[in-house]
Amino acid sequence: MNTHTVQVKRPGGRSAHVQAQVRAALEALVAEEGRERVTVPAVAERAGVSASSIYRRWGDLSGLLAETATARLDPNRPLPDTGDLRRDLEAWARELIAHMTQPGHKALLKAAAALDNQEDTHCLRNRKVEAGVMIERAHRRGEPTLAPQQVIDHLVAPIVFRLLFGADAVTPALAETLVAALFRAAAPADR
Amino acid sequence: MNTHTVQVKRPGGRSAHVQAQVRAALEALVAEEGRERVTVPAVAERAGVSASSIYRRWGDLSGLLAETATARLDPNRPLPDTGDLRRDLEAWARELIAHMTQPGHKALLKAAAALDNQEDTHCLRNRKVEAGVMIERAHRRGEPTLAPQQVIDHLVAPIVFRLLFGADAVTPALAETLVAALFRAAAPADR
Repeated sequence: MNTHTVQVKRPGGRSAHVQAQVRAALEALVAEEGRERVTVPAVAERAGVSASSIYRRWGDLSGLLAETATARLDPNRPLPDTGDLRRDLEAWARELIAHMTQPGHKALLKAAAALDNQEDTHCLRNRKVEAGVMIERAHRRGEPTLAPQQVIDHLVAPIVFRLLFGADAVTPALAETLVAALFRAAAPADR
Repeated sequence: MNTHTVQVKRPGGRSAHVQAQVRAALEALVAEEGRERVTVPAVAERAGVSASSIYRRWGDLSGLLAETATARLDPNRPLPDTGDLRRDLEAWARELIAHMTQPGHKALLKAAAALDNQEDTHCLRNRKVEAGVMIERAHRRGEPTLAPQQVIDHLVAPIVFRLLFGADAVTPALAETLVAALFRAAAPADR
């Protein structure tokens, strides 16, 4: 061990601080200028870092957009745990709606939708895992359950689709409407 | 009337032909290069027209992408009319799936998702109108019906969301799965 070890990146240290600054600068610029007009040098100037440090960490603007758009809802945050799957999913959906309707977040959602992907996006993977955790808890409580894919198709997809393509209001109350429809949709066909 | 009248645009004439060439060039370039690398001059060269004629008609690349992405499923095509709403919606969903999974169309769908919109996109408006036509026919036949918004939320949204964000297969069989879920979701809550 020698003095060079002080240059190792420390999680939560200077590196995390710079990343947060760069993401905040990107979000502000996308909200103000629109995604089409944002460049890496502009983000670098706003964040007070060198453009080369952005290229080094994220490759290019697409990489930065993708990472920022998908890293913004902390996958380690506590999930709703009310003891009832329906109420858990309603609270979770309200949280997603509150997050995605913040100023500037629609533009990042659009940027994420535009990116090439050969597999599930980080964001979708995280939402599937979260749905799975809440469903698994309900299963252990003996509640009738549903599949994570049904939660994606009938709860997450309509919220995101409305934000991307439509003028249909995405309000907190949509959480209850869609969760009720999801539970009916997921009921056995012979019910 | 004088000889200048021959310069008036004729629907289906030279103007329509040029538009079709430009759209085809755009689709080919997006499929080959990805949306981020496509420029108006490149589209013009591929289509064998001047870049200025593209700027004149579509304003810029965003305008061309939006118009091409939303104009590709002919809103005047005949809709399924089987005499049964469920079978109509299944046939309609299979048609949407077949259309959106053609090579290059996912890239255009992503381009459309990335565009700014303050109101429903043309594409969404057309799909709502189509759902409304099939639902209205069912209503006149005395069938239990549902709302066009439910068709958007539980049939169109999951298909588009899977294409934009996921690796989940979008196959023709998804039409039946989602239409069955839609009918359960749209059933009265006290059923």
